[in-house]
Amino acid sequence: MTAVDPTSPARRGRGRPGYDQAAVLRAAVELFNRKGYDATSIGDLAKELGVTKPAIYHHFDSKEDLLRLALDDALDELTTLVSNASRGNGTAYARLRDVVHRSVEVLVAHQPSVTLLLRIRGNTAVEQEALERRRWLDDRLAALVREAIAEGALRDDVPPDLVSRLLFGMVNSLVEWYRAAGTYDAATVADALVTIAFEGLTRRA
Amino acid sequence: MTAVDPTSPARRGRGRPGYDQAAVLRAAVELFNRKGYDATSIGDLAKELGVTKPAIYHHFDSKEDLLRLALDDALDELTTLVSNASRGNGTAYARLRDVVHRSVEVLVAHQPSVTLLLRIRGNTAVEQEALERRRWLDDRLAALVREAIAEGALRDDVPPDLVSRLLFGMVNSLVEWYRAAGTYDAATVADALVTIAFEGLTRRA
Repeated sequence: MTAVDPTSPARRGRGRPGYDQAAVLRAAVELFNRKGYDATSIGDLAKELGVTKPAIYHHFDSKEDLLRLALDDALDELTTLVSNASRGNGTAYARLRDVVHRSVEVLVAHQPSVTLLLRIRGNTAVEQEALERRRWLDDRLAALVREAIAEGALRDDVPPDLVSRLLFGMVNSLVEWYRAAGTYDAATVADALVTIAFEGLTRRA
Repeated sequence: MTAVDPTSPARRGRGRPGYDQAAVLRAAVELFNRKGYDATSIGDLAKELGVTKPAIYHHFDSKEDLLRLALDDALDELTTLVSNASRGNGTAYARLRDVVHRSVEVLVAHQPSVTLLLRIRGNTAVEQEALERRRWLDDRLAALVREAIAEGALRDDVPPDLVSRLLFGMVNSLVEWYRAAGTYDAATVADALVTIAFEGLTRRA
């Protein structure tokens, strides 16, 4: 898939009139998030776009095909990010701060597909596979937290698995309230989140 | 509605055989969370419980009636909590720490109905009203954050509205991962969350 200007809802692809693959996928993700994946049909998507069902099948084999591409959009960059953080140079503490900051930026850049990823329940093989990839990410991040505690850089009076859950729970909460058109850009939100999580809200003398 | 032992799925109510009002409501909330409110019918609920539709209508006028009671279950206790925190004695800082701690405990005690509250999108009048009550809570909590910053107790280098969003985003994330049958009780999770949010993860000498 080629990059598409997200401000342009309708595009021509492969010389065929109508919506190109990226625009259909964007509309599908938006509809899955609004109505739920299970409750959305290819017919609903065609109706939403004002095209026929064959116009959708021109680009995608099935509804699951659309879901797989959307979830890969969310997971591929996060997987690269977390892999690099797990085996990078520097202290675990520095790598953890950095991966939290970058994950906020990835989440903002891919908000619709990450929203979908966080809402799937595992009813299909594609969803199961995505949830397995999510668990892999969670496990790597939890291991990085434990490594930073073992270094003595992170507080050790909170159970490590609660640290991981709460820290990335705060990151994931962004899908519910962050609006790209709002007041704060991704870097400002990432700075705020890292400051709160690592330094705490209490003012120090 | 009277309190019902949550470990007992089927109960007799008002001398009528079958499920009592509380048990039907619990099953409805579980189904709304699993399938989505819009996609769930009274017929689906009857099928789930293995009863007829009139057995549901014996207790509730409509699907919206079930939704209203479920959302009130989530909102009533949170509203009392936030009202008390807004006008209580003590510093804003102490009241904010306390309301964060208590909101974790309320969320754990009412996890299914709070999950529903956090997922509704405002498609019906009942949902609109609940979202309005949620906004009232968010506004009061944001005001308490600003008050704690003005006192000089909370750091002032992060925009106050980002503090509110991220702090209560971390609290709300619990609905996605907390399991009552798991390792940690509500008080332990509340302590961990308050420690991370106010003291930060970085270990201090």
